[in-house]
Amino acid sequence: MQHYFSPASFLLDNIMEETFVPFQGIKNDLRGRLRCYKQDWTSGLKSGYRILAPTTYIFFASAIPVISFGEQLERNTDGVLTAVQTLASTAVCGIIHSIIGGQPLLILGVAEPTVIMYTFMFNFAKERADLGRGLFLAWSGWVCVWTALLLLLLAVLGACSIINRFTRIAGELFGLLIAMLFMQQAIKGLVDEFRIPQRENPKLIEFIPSWRFANGMFALVLSFGLLLTGLRSRKARSWRYGSGWLRSLIADYGVPLMVVVWTAVSYIPTGNVPKGIPRRLFSPNPWSPGAYDNWTVIKDMLDVPIFYIIGAFVPATMIAVLYYFDHSVASQLSQQKEFNLRKPSSYHYDLLLLSFLTLMCGLLGIPPSNGVIPQSPMHTKSLATLKYQLLRNRLVQTARRSLRKNASLGQLYGNMQEAYQQMQTPLIHQQPAQGLKEFKESTIQAATCTGHIDAPVDETVFDIEKEIDDLLPVEVKEQRVSNLLQATMVGGCVAAMPFLKMIPTSVLWGYFAFMAIESLPGNQFWERILLLFTAPSRRYKVLEDYHATFVETVPFKTIAMFTIFQTTYLLICFGLTWIPIAGVMFPLMIMLLIPARQYLSSQVFQRSTPSRFGCSRV
Amino acid sequence: MQHYFSPASFLLDNIMEETFVPFQGIKNDLRGRLRCYKQDWTSGLKSGYRILAPTTYIFFASAIPVISFGEQLERNTDGVLTAVQTLASTAVCGIIHSIIGGQPLLILGVAEPTVIMYTFMFNFAKERADLGRGLFLAWSGWVCVWTALLLLLLAVLGACSIINRFTRIAGELFGLLIAMLFMQQAIKGLVDEFRIPQRENPKLIEFIPSWRFANGMFALVLSFGLLLTGLRSRKARSWRYGSGWLRSLIADYGVPLMVVVWTAVSYIPTGNVPKGIPRRLFSPNPWSPGAYDNWTVIKDMLDVPIFYIIGAFVPATMIAVLYYFDHSVASQLSQQKEFNLRKPSSYHYDLLLLSFLTLMCGLLGIPPSNGVIPQSPMHTKSLATLKYQLLRNRLVQTARRSLRKNASLGQLYGNMQEAYQQMQTPLIHQQPAQGLKEFKESTIQAATCTGHIDAPVDETVFDIEKEIDDLLPVEVKEQRVSNLLQATMVGGCVAAMPFLKMIPTSVLWGYFAFMAIESLPGNQFWERILLLFTAPSRRYKVLEDYHATFVETVPFKTIAMFTIFQTTYLLICFGLTWIPIAGVMFPLMIMLLIPARQYLSSQVFQRSTPSRFGCSRV
Repeated sequence: MQHYFSPASFLLDNIMEETFVPFQGIKNDLRGRLRCYKQDWTSGLKSGYRILAPTTYIFFASAIPVISFGEQLERNTDGVLTAVQTLASTAVCGIIHSIIGGQPLLILGVAEPTVIMYTFMFNFAKERADLGRGLFLAWSGWVCVWTALLLLLLAVLGACSIINRFTRIAGELFGLLIAMLFMQQAIKGLVDEFRIPQRENPKLIEFIPSWRFANGMFALVLSFGLLLTGLRSRKARSWRYGSGWLRSLIADYGVPLMVVVWTAVSYIPTGNVPKGIPRRLFSPNPWSPGAYDNWTVIKDMLDVPIFYIIGAFVPATMIAVLYYFDHSVASQLSQQKEFNLRKPSSYHYDLLLLSFLTLMCGLLGIPPSNGVIPQSPMHTKSLATLKYQLLRNRLVQTARRSLRKNASLGQLYGNMQEAYQQMQTPLIHQQPAQGLKEFKESTIQAATCTGHIDAPVDETVFDIEKEIDDLLPVEVKEQRVSNLLQATMVGGCVAAMPFLKMIPTSVLWGYFAFMAIESLPGNQFWERILLLFTAPSRRYKVLEDYHATFVETVPFKTIAMFTIFQTTYLLICFGLTWIPIAGVMFPLMIMLLIPARQYLSSQVFQRSTPSRFGCSRV
Repeated sequence: MQHYFSPASFLLDNIMEETFVPFQGIKNDLRGRLRCYKQDWTSGLKSGYRILAPTTYIFFASAIPVISFGEQLERNTDGVLTAVQTLASTAVCGIIHSIIGGQPLLILGVAEPTVIMYTFMFNFAKERADLGRGLFLAWSGWVCVWTALLLLLLAVLGACSIINRFTRIAGELFGLLIAMLFMQQAIKGLVDEFRIPQRENPKLIEFIPSWRFANGMFALVLSFGLLLTGLRSRKARSWRYGSGWLRSLIADYGVPLMVVVWTAVSYIPTGNVPKGIPRRLFSPNPWSPGAYDNWTVIKDMLDVPIFYIIGAFVPATMIAVLYYFDHSVASQLSQQKEFNLRKPSSYHYDLLLLSFLTLMCGLLGIPPSNGVIPQSPMHTKSLATLKYQLLRNRLVQTARRSLRKNASLGQLYGNMQEAYQQMQTPLIHQQPAQGLKEFKESTIQAATCTGHIDAPVDETVFDIEKEIDDLLPVEVKEQRVSNLLQATMVGGCVAAMPFLKMIPTSVLWGYFAFMAIESLPGNQFWERILLLFTAPSRRYKVLEDYHATFVETVPFKTIAMFTIFQTTYLLICFGLTWIPIAGVMFPLMIMLLIPARQYLSSQVFQRSTPSRFGCSRV
């Protein structure tokens, strides 16, 4: 599951044709995606119940932050917007995108930058006598109208072509930044568990110092419990204990299961412990009065003074830049080269759709959704696991059957190749079955060495499961079913609010930390940071595992210098997010990377002659 | 570090000559140990500062339970005996044993059964008008006198010969039982952190429900923190990050370091948090008035009524049986076959010495010490690590030097063999240098395959560190220095009481759990229990690691049946420890294993023909 590294070069990435001809990008995207539209559905449905594993995994990764951001929004907007609205936006946009969107690997949701922008807008509107709390949603509707217009323009003019200049370097820097923000949220949330929450009555029994301290310590137990068990359960497939289906079950559904388990644990203390400990999610039920005020906001939009309608253009430009960047980078990170995707990308068309979705959300008075990180790459990774398992099961079956029939190694390989081909997506963009070719060579070499090439093979020469495990290529089950299902389940959360409210906030913080950590493996920037801390004598261990080719072809000193530069850049970006409003504009910092990278790669980090870093083993 | 499994057969263990001729056993022991006495010191001193790693490790493993048992004893004896006395006993007995004892791998200490017996004796004495609290120590002095006499008899008559009938089966069952008792203590201790301690004033601020709950949660954080970081630090040597000396430092001193770290963490909450949270060790300073009442107990011994002097024989028999068993099994577990010890055992003479030590402790009014599990086998294991590192460093140096001189593989091997021989203990009981022989063959085979046999070797053919790591045999640095030093350090604890009192009790519980878990690897009974839970398809992974030969030679069904029988037996023994006084006699249950095992191994588990358990890989 760890072989997501591509044999891509260190500094140069996939360069795509840049199409700035109006409508050209959208047309190309639509043509490409329509060709595989039917297959997107059939192949998803063919996976059967197994599709539920990535679905549930992404549903939790999608719903939990959205609920938490909803709570944040509720505090910041005096209850005008709540988790009900963020969930609704995520569900509706997700469902629409999964059905008529271009890239079904992309996951949509209400993200932190949206929350920050809406908070800023609310604070602005609240203090204007002619807007106020009452017209805030109507005014933000106008902001969305302008945003939609700008996004439409960007989509039509082919602005997404620039995204291809965002190389792995920029994308991975952004990915790591998001991981840091998630981790920061987890830590901040945990620290707040020791404090009196702002909107609560500080005279309540649970806010006396002793209970606050108790609450904080309980929060530490719950969040670390979730984080450690969650991380461990993801590795269940390689456990030694328990039967295969149990291990699969835990690996597939362990994290949701752990949320349930630690929520149950939070109910163990009874008796003297006040009801407010541990603290739990706070959200109105969707059927409480006033919860639907926002849906009719379109009526009020003409009440907004013309001056503010025009002024809405200012925040709209910021949101548009943000969404253009976030949406495209999320899409790009979910389509990295090492996933070996077979279906085409759809940046231009997806931005067009996002423009319509933003308009819709604005008119409905709910915060808009856009493509989210790390959920989108997590989605692709979990689908790679799914495809891997489907392929593996089929090949193991085929191999077993061949062995029982006393096939020779040649026949065995033929049968497996055939089975493999049957599992392939018909729309193949890359070379077919590269993995299986390697597989043939290695096995045949082993057999020649021991003189078994034409004799019937048995399991002593050919360890089916191991061979297949080692050599199956990374492929992704590209389909629309998991995305549709997870968005529908997010929608279901609105109805399930009474159950969601049972989850302690500390479990949430643990989950944020879990997501931050889960997004790291496969990020080459992260791998390079680790490499810097790896003792020189242990670097050969990196080479023993799956690894990106750059560690073999680029001198260590260059890797180190580049990584240190990139880390400094990351820390500056992270620092920027602390500046209240300017922080929202950190995408600009990332965009600055384009000229920076081009200067650097041509001037400073010249492509060096390949050399290993003083290590004798491969 | 994990290759402690012997190629011993599954049911039959090392059978030693049984010598029931009086004094014969003691004489043999003395003769054997005197021959290597000088080398015991010189070899220890030659290790230099490295000896401090196992010393510190064992010092903590020895001191922490002794302090905790001292606290327990203080509660149970109304403060007549405290941690000062248990530490003093452990230190004095340890120092004497390390200097004039037979087997210097054996660690002495005041153990839980002693605490249980002394509690029982105190409760008995307290209620007798003519004994009472005042004469309790004098009476227990008489118990020690009788115990010493009985132990003397057992030693002289060669009772320890029977210990050789305690095979691996009985010893490992006992080891696992002790691990369960330690874990039970850890869990009980943690649960008690939520309750009001018995001897404290329940009106104190820290015992109101909210602070109690806070204390309990804080205790969970501290103890799990210690346990998880402690376990992880032991594996530091195989980490990828950090320089070699840092990794070694963490692996060697990580656990003591973690005790310090988590104690420091326990001081972070200040402000509103009462001083009593988290709870810390409670012990009088050794210089408080009354702390030395016990040392003059010998004066009072003649004040004990004659009836009670004779009656003291009853508890004495129980203690004698207990000590005879505990001491010998602890010694046996620290000398298991897979450690490849080169120096002889000394059961008879050590029992004789224990008899004198018990007498001495009784006359000084302190509870006696005896050989302890799991500390004794932990001691041997840590010395095996030490020896391994010394050997490894030397061989790596030699190999590097040879490579620099462009030696051929033959020369290289010769040089390394020579270096290896120089590091050998002169008193060799087994075949020498078995490990290095294998080493030669494997390397030469590899070289022949690639045609390098006579050419100068370089590091691409011959990866020094890896080859040496894989093939060095298990050897133990058998010496007296680490035992002497750790006992002296335990003595130093009496003076360091003000510092020890800073340790939170919850860190103690975490440490108990750590010791329980640390004692498991290498216990074949435990490995077999794990094997039962290993999925059949993953059993080959057991064979890939270091493993006991029985998994290859004994049919899986037999292993399973035997392990289930043994587990049932273990659970019965564990249940017995819950019966207040009868519980102390659980050694009898273990002794019952001798006839049981002989019946079973001859009747039920007949030695079967070797067969693998349906697994194709070795």
